[in-house]
Amino acid sequence: MNQCYGCTTCKSADKPLEGFIAGLPMETSHHRVEGQSTKCAFGLQGVCCRLCANGPCRITPEAPRGICGADADTIVARNFLRAVASGSGCYIHVVENTALNVKNVAKSKGEIKGPDTLNRLAAIFGIEEEDIHRRAEAVADAVLKDLYLPEYEKMQLTEKMAYAPRYKKWKELGILPGGAKSEVFHGVVKCSTNLNSDPVNMLLDCLKLGISTGIYGLVLTNLLNDVVLGEPEIRFAPVGLRVIDPDYINIMITGHQHSMFTFLQDRLTDEDVVKKAEKAGAKGFKLVGCTCVGQDLQLRGAHYEDIFDGHAGNNYTSEAILATGGIDAVISEFNCTLPGIEPICDELKIKQICIDNVAKKANAELKEFDFENRPAVTEEIIDEVVAAYSARRGSVPMNLMKEHGYDNTLTGVSEISLKKFLGGSWKPLIDLIVSGDIKGVAGVVGCSNLTAGGHDVLTVDLVKELIAKDIIVLTAGCSSGGIENCGLMTPEAAKYAGPKLRAVCESLGIPPVLNFGPCLAIGRLEIVATELAEELGVDLPQLPLVLSAAQWLEEQALADGCYGLSLGLPLHLGLPPFMTGSKVAVKVLTEDMKELTGGQVIINPDAKESAKILEEIILEKRRGLQI
Amino acid sequence: MNQCYGCTTCKSADKPLEGFIAGLPMETSHHRVEGQSTKCAFGLQGVCCRLCANGPCRITPEAPRGICGADADTIVARNFLRAVASGSGCYIHVVENTALNVKNVAKSKGEIKGPDTLNRLAAIFGIEEEDIHRRAEAVADAVLKDLYLPEYEKMQLTEKMAYAPRYKKWKELGILPGGAKSEVFHGVVKCSTNLNSDPVNMLLDCLKLGISTGIYGLVLTNLLNDVVLGEPEIRFAPVGLRVIDPDYINIMITGHQHSMFTFLQDRLTDEDVVKKAEKAGAKGFKLVGCTCVGQDLQLRGAHYEDIFDGHAGNNYTSEAILATGGIDAVISEFNCTLPGIEPICDELKIKQICIDNVAKKANAELKEFDFENRPAVTEEIIDEVVAAYSARRGSVPMNLMKEHGYDNTLTGVSEISLKKFLGGSWKPLIDLIVSGDIKGVAGVVGCSNLTAGGHDVLTVDLVKELIAKDIIVLTAGCSSGGIENCGLMTPEAAKYAGPKLRAVCESLGIPPVLNFGPCLAIGRLEIVATELAEELGVDLPQLPLVLSAAQWLEEQALADGCYGLSLGLPLHLGLPPFMTGSKVAVKVLTEDMKELTGGQVIINPDAKESAKILEEIILEKRRGLQI
Repeated sequence: MNQCYGCTTCKSADKPLEGFIAGLPMETSHHRVEGQSTKCAFGLQGVCCRLCANGPCRITPEAPRGICGADADTIVARNFLRAVASGSGCYIHVVENTALNVKNVAKSKGEIKGPDTLNRLAAIFGIEEEDIHRRAEAVADAVLKDLYLPEYEKMQLTEKMAYAPRYKKWKELGILPGGAKSEVFHGVVKCSTNLNSDPVNMLLDCLKLGISTGIYGLVLTNLLNDVVLGEPEIRFAPVGLRVIDPDYINIMITGHQHSMFTFLQDRLTDEDVVKKAEKAGAKGFKLVGCTCVGQDLQLRGAHYEDIFDGHAGNNYTSEAILATGGIDAVISEFNCTLPGIEPICDELKIKQICIDNVAKKANAELKEFDFENRPAVTEEIIDEVVAAYSARRGSVPMNLMKEHGYDNTLTGVSEISLKKFLGGSWKPLIDLIVSGDIKGVAGVVGCSNLTAGGHDVLTVDLVKELIAKDIIVLTAGCSSGGIENCGLMTPEAAKYAGPKLRAVCESLGIPPVLNFGPCLAIGRLEIVATELAEELGVDLPQLPLVLSAAQWLEEQALADGCYGLSLGLPLHLGLPPFMTGSKVAVKVLTEDMKELTGGQVIINPDAKESAKILEEIILEKRRGLQI
Repeated sequence: MNQCYGCTTCKSADKPLEGFIAGLPMETSHHRVEGQSTKCAFGLQGVCCRLCANGPCRITPEAPRGICGADADTIVARNFLRAVASGSGCYIHVVENTALNVKNVAKSKGEIKGPDTLNRLAAIFGIEEEDIHRRAEAVADAVLKDLYLPEYEKMQLTEKMAYAPRYKKWKELGILPGGAKSEVFHGVVKCSTNLNSDPVNMLLDCLKLGISTGIYGLVLTNLLNDVVLGEPEIRFAPVGLRVIDPDYINIMITGHQHSMFTFLQDRLTDEDVVKKAEKAGAKGFKLVGCTCVGQDLQLRGAHYEDIFDGHAGNNYTSEAILATGGIDAVISEFNCTLPGIEPICDELKIKQICIDNVAKKANAELKEFDFENRPAVTEEIIDEVVAAYSARRGSVPMNLMKEHGYDNTLTGVSEISLKKFLGGSWKPLIDLIVSGDIKGVAGVVGCSNLTAGGHDVLTVDLVKELIAKDIIVLTAGCSSGGIENCGLMTPEAAKYAGPKLRAVCESLGIPPVLNFGPCLAIGRLEIVATELAEELGVDLPQLPLVLSAAQWLEEQALADGCYGLSLGLPLHLGLPPFMTGSKVAVKVLTEDMKELTGGQVIINPDAKESAKILEEIILEKRRGLQI
């Protein structure tokens, strides 16, 4: 395919997938790791600055300042703030579109599929509207209003959504966020050329961005999605490449904005549309899940059994999913849509359609989602997909992998469905934690990357270590996709758990790793944690709860991480962000943070060591709670 | 001062300054150029990506894609869009604060120092309010309202402010901007990890950001400042290090937000405040201009003769200004406030105060500007400055340079004052252009950097070449500071002009280089150009007008440049932005742009060659106009 084809591929925790990718007649990300294995030490340490035409400048012992005078601390903090602000921007973009979609559904008297969630939000926001649609519109408007406040006006919903002890702490630290969009804007300006040069000031802004990211981009996005797409229900579902059924016209979806698919999802099972598929020779249409929007669909899969085939894999499985030949079109609306899918789509005649211009791929057709014109645009999309199916099937080789993945993966876990499963109260979980049957809780969240041991290698190894220590794992993000494709989310995976956790799992018929879905669902984990803390009458940092974004990848993950730190939680990362070149930044994140918020960053690329460190933190927290 | 002290300093067009800096007992940016002279080729070409934890990735012939699959075109376009969005953000931050200050002055019935400008804006905006304060508030509100629109709603004032043929062109190209703050936000999101990978889509967004930057960040900021600070009036004034008068308590100001100084400027000449200075042993207070806010104060210097000493120098003169020992405090509110001033301030006991947290320097005190509390905060600032004066004078050596600079520099040139000077009409200027006495107009704008031949070297050489070809030069930005300190803005500089331009200058008593002030005043140049085009009945690209940001430095300059390109103007740069690694990006900017907007980028580091290229373009435009 190009000169790199034939390179060694990187390792994957998913051995069948590793074998499949190694045998592909085309290049994937897994092939490109080798050619990019020589890393720039300046970039890794974050001490390269390219903010001006005098640069790039690089910090060395001989040149401890850039031309302008910026030192390593300033350069690192600027680069980091920019990444966090950008990552926050991504999530805020998602919640803005989601709120707009809820508003538009409400205004057009569309279906409110999650009335309970709507009522929950209305109660929190203090909205009293008799009419369900007016209620939904008011909820969406309240979110949108906050997003558009200036940076110098604090958002109104933060206090209503946040756990009171946390809100108090944030107020003390002066990190309550103003309007979320303006905060992103402000962060980006602050780290522009010759502006801020105070690393601590910039790092505190990262915490502020973390709060707006978490409460709006994460927590509220989930709940708004539930309003129009339906609430998660616990069930078993298939995962992996096996979900691709070649008898159907298959659309792989990638992104983070599930509410953009509401209309399409419903249309694809309408009789007139199914007829179009049948006319082309297929049984109908199927959506194949990939990346976080696939996780979101899987989470709400109980409502979409007709149209949803299952979640095939995470970001770095996307090229393999396409390489099976079984996908006819990709509809993307956000990241993590790898540029690497472009040549594969070209080669395999897979139609690429983007429905949000922020995620436009070079060779994709842009069909922007537009609520008012969604019937017409959706029709165009469907016709394009059918045309692609007709043009490519037969002429493009199939390379399916029906044995990949698992059939009985537990999905649909949310703050509501889990509590329901426990009998309507957190008490059973708290009792198990108090008794030590569950030693603690680890949120293993965030992305999948290819460089911390390989594709999902550290994530999966860490999860195995944690459950073996009787620590239950809750997941959210592309990490979920990797962990489920490795079988750790089936009830049979109880065997990997320590004896106490194993017994708990076996008695309940659940796996030791519970999948909350997309990275957005880090917000759901926060709700669970907050409700547990409330029940115990403690603040979040006192809980025997740790976070790991073992294989964080994107700028968004850094914003998520800052949310975790603002919550006062210990956060493990397998690879450091590009900031080890700054003593100040490293000290603030790994040490001073304990005093500031109660949180701390732990960097460790080794699964065994990391699990031990996290276990020790959990034990310390248990001692603090005298349990 | 540190291990680099004693290095060779870089060249400067300003030879006395070069000598002064070389002899300093402390390190400056000019010293650090040598230590940072080995540049990273990946960074220079823009083919280094550090958007994710798999990276940094670098494009080479052997590794033509990053791990995710992004190629050089995508990586370059993403990096460029992020820089342009950030640069735009900087200007939009400035116009937002400026509009807020106008609004607050209006609401508090403060002084409207530029009623003509207010009426001009009200007429353009279609605002009819009898009361002057209500009129000012309505004008400010109209600007703020546009800034806060979502990205998907077009701003209302764009059409009112833009030249009609340009507006039409932008509409055709689909690059009319939505809310300016949301456009910045959108741009930053678009180039985040695994989002957009369509280089042309991203480059078109840069043009869109250029339009909002230009119309709001540049044009409107100037006019709003004029409303509360007074309109520019042409006069002669001193420039250079000579302006520092050690008998006074001297405050160097840096930044871009002149309206933040309104209150302080007025207070510093009040009797009770002067008494504080006198009590400390000084004659009173003086503001010493540095960077663009200094240019802005110089521009309106006619209104501030008591308090303003003069403009001492541009961004890369700031360290030298401090090194004279004559400055007692720095008040900064934005860039271009070099981090390099921090150790110098420490050593010379110069008090650093930041009044906008985006520009917080590490060792500065943060005294945020807050309209409501401005009397109290200003008093605190004044007391701090007096205390610094008392603590340092006598104990810190003086190294003044009273012979540096010029006494009779023409300043105060604006779209209004210049037209007034010409007798109230552009006809005399048009006649001179038609007759060929003035061959054409070159806007030499933007920053000062240290790497295109040295400090202001290319800028000053290019200006000399252009005026020698009878091309009149209009300036705006830190470039102005360098050019004026080299004497090219005194009437005597007519001798460097070609015979025709020289005769024009000598008959009018003006220099061949007219200083419009800060980089913000690129917006004033646009007004002049538009009025000339209107008078001639042509579109902007038809004018014998070229732009050069010969020594552009910052991300803001890239946003300015995109404004120039959206206007359809040829834009010369001495150094390329970090994008030469992308064939697509280079082709779009240097070739395809001619078809898109009429503009084009010309990269050339040689003053003679560049002047020749620009002259040829001017001659071609003259032929087009049949003159």
